Amino acid sequence: MNQKELDEEHTYLLSVVQAFQLYEEFGKQWVVYQLSMFKSLKEEDKKLLPNYHQKWNLILCGLHANQMIFDAIIRNQEDIITHLHFPILSEEQKHNLILSISDNERNELCQKLDKVRSMLTHLYRDWSIEGINERKLCYEPILHRLKELYQDNRNNIKILVPGAGLGRLAYEIASLGFQCEGNEFTYYMLLTSEFLLNGIERIGQFKIFPWIMETCNLLSFNDQASVATIPDIVPNLGNHQMSMVAGDFVEIYSKQKESFDCIVTCFFIDTAHNIIDYLRIIYSCLKLHGRWINEGPLLYHYKDSDSLSIELNWEEIKYIISSLGFTIISERLIPCTYCYSEHSLLQSKYTAIWFEAIKN
Amino acid sequence: MNQKELDEEHTYLLSVVQAFQLYEEFGKQWVVYQLSMFKSLKEEDKKLLPNYHQKWNLILCGLHANQMIFDAIIRNQEDIITHLHFPILSEEQKHNLILSISDNERNELCQKLDKVRSMLTHLYRDWSIEGINERKLCYEPILHRLKELYQDNRNNIKILVPGAGLGRLAYEIASLGFQCEGNEFTYYMLLTSEFLLNGIERIGQFKIFPWIMETCNLLSFNDQASVATIPDIVPNLGNHQMSMVAGDFVEIYSKQKESFDCIVTCFFIDTAHNIIDYLRIIYSCLKLHGRWINEGPLLYHYKDSDSLSIELNWEEIKYIISSLGFTIISERLIPCTYCYSEHSLLQSKYTAIWFEAIKN
Repeated sequence: MNQKELDEEHTYLLSVVQAFQLYEEFGKQWVVYQLSMFKSLKEEDKKLLPNYHQKWNLILCGLHANQMIFDAIIRNQEDIITHLHFPILSEEQKHNLILSISDNERNELCQKLDKVRSMLTHLYRDWSIEGINERKLCYEPILHRLKELYQDNRNNIKILVPGAGLGRLAYEIASLGFQCEGNEFTYYMLLTSEFLLNGIERIGQFKIFPWIMETCNLLSFNDQASVATIPDIVPNLGNHQMSMVAGDFVEIYSKQKESFDCIVTCFFIDTAHNIIDYLRIIYSCLKLHGRWINEGPLLYHYKDSDSLSIELNWEEIKYIISSLGFTIISERLIPCTYCYSEHSLLQSKYTAIWFEAIKN
Repeated sequence: MNQKELDEEHTYLLSVVQAFQLYEEFGKQWVVYQLSMFKSLKEEDKKLLPNYHQKWNLILCGLHANQMIFDAIIRNQEDIITHLHFPILSEEQKHNLILSISDNERNELCQKLDKVRSMLTHLYRDWSIEGINERKLCYEPILHRLKELYQDNRNNIKILVPGAGLGRLAYEIASLGFQCEGNEFTYYMLLTSEFLLNGIERIGQFKIFPWIMETCNLLSFNDQASVATIPDIVPNLGNHQMSMVAGDFVEIYSKQKESFDCIVTCFFIDTAHNIIDYLRIIYSCLKLHGRWINEGPLLYHYKDSDSLSIELNWEEIKYIISSLGFTIISERLIPCTYCYSEHSLLQSKYTAIWFEAIKN
């Protein structure tokens, strides 16, 4: 990286650190807005909601609890933060910052805060006691197959997990004795997974409220305030060969020919602008006769963006996979969920495509 | 209505008629954009998708088939269109119109076209041969209860269905012998239901492709091109006491005290800005000891808008219902879907709240 790229990188990292810090303050403003709508109701309507203020006070408590884990994630980066002179904001500074931003900046900040918020449901998915069923549905078939495939000498088997997110699947794979490399692009994920993998101290250290800002499709406030207890295990990397590589999958792995025995893509291939790029790279990264295990839907992430997005169906992808030189040796559909609140009256469920292919 | 309001109403109606006419032309532009992305790929990538152009040609056929029903919906309004001098656009005019609009207008047109597109899935839901299961899950419990409740003299029982959409539920209720009044706000729904209720000629008159513009979560092109056959029955209003009232629920029904024996709300109450308004009006519209049957989730429609949106959970709503003077006599949860493609790898399922209440 040259100096200009380095400076851009630091500016981006700073904006992520700042967004993590602003979560609660931003949430407070949202609460103020909600209460202002309540205040605009007729007096007789207000009387029909006698516990309304109490509910929003509890929501404020939830936002505060969530801020605790975001603060810990940032504290875990103390070295970088001190080294790069990132400012840790006081309560007053946070408040003034949010009040002073322009409409344009607000839009951008909203997007960043959405990403911070999404860390809560990802923490639920990957590292909570309550998320065990979601993990079982999704990760168990992959882990089961890896154990079956590689029964001996796992410490010589190199496995790549692109789109590793908060790192739970990569950690589980490393725990089985494999050399596992996770790859992840966004700093939101990277800072959070770094904390989970290296900074967490004890089981149940945090109680977070992943759905505290959801106000739709609720039977009761208890559903909105449902808790995730983080973590369910304290990762012990002592004996494990595990690494997380930060950066863009296409950039990094297009240079690594025949490096991995196995590649595991879980809810990943549809994050591509051009999925064919991903498929080519997966092929070239694998050693001869290497295995590719995929599980996921085809919810193309750039569909509604202004950038390139090639959205293929499974039949088309299958044709490409074979054309590139893979043989698909098994294929099935697996029902699963993604960052899913089982308390919601609206349930999004995925039918994930599972397949296993061998590089010829 | 005064002249100004009347003019505004005509302008709005014109914009809806225009949007119905522009569906296919707008879709063609989208196809052109998709193919331009394909063209930007490297030659070796293009070779991996040998049937890509053929697929998009089939999509064009689907768009054309969908336009057929939209054209018929507009033709069904011939009297109004002739009377108000609404222009029927030629192919060339459509093409030029879309090419000439500004960015701002494009945004607005996109929103209108989204509403036109949504008519396709609503047609599937309410009037297709293929939508029978969705209707059974959703409407059957309501119809069953009405039959149980009112065994005799149904022609004296007045039932209101607010948010009647494309009118199938209201029609089914009228078919049981009740006096049924549907209420609907949007012209998209009103023009379409008018055609279905009065203008359709024979079973299976149209083959439409409700999901032809969906490019995500597909196993194969067949899923994208899945057909809905419209209609499954030709409504016969001859013997039925059924009416559709156009306009805003709050405006119209706040003036009608004690008018209905029964109100059926299906996927409706969460369309409110202030749900308490709806609950009060439902109460005041009902005759003493009248029944209110509700089925639906709580996906508040104005949640992400800039306008008032009071988002309550079921516990809060229940408290209000009782406070207003209803007694809830039954309550349960019903799994169902809404305009749902069973072929998609992403499945949105609702747990609808069912309840029946009596006005004291």
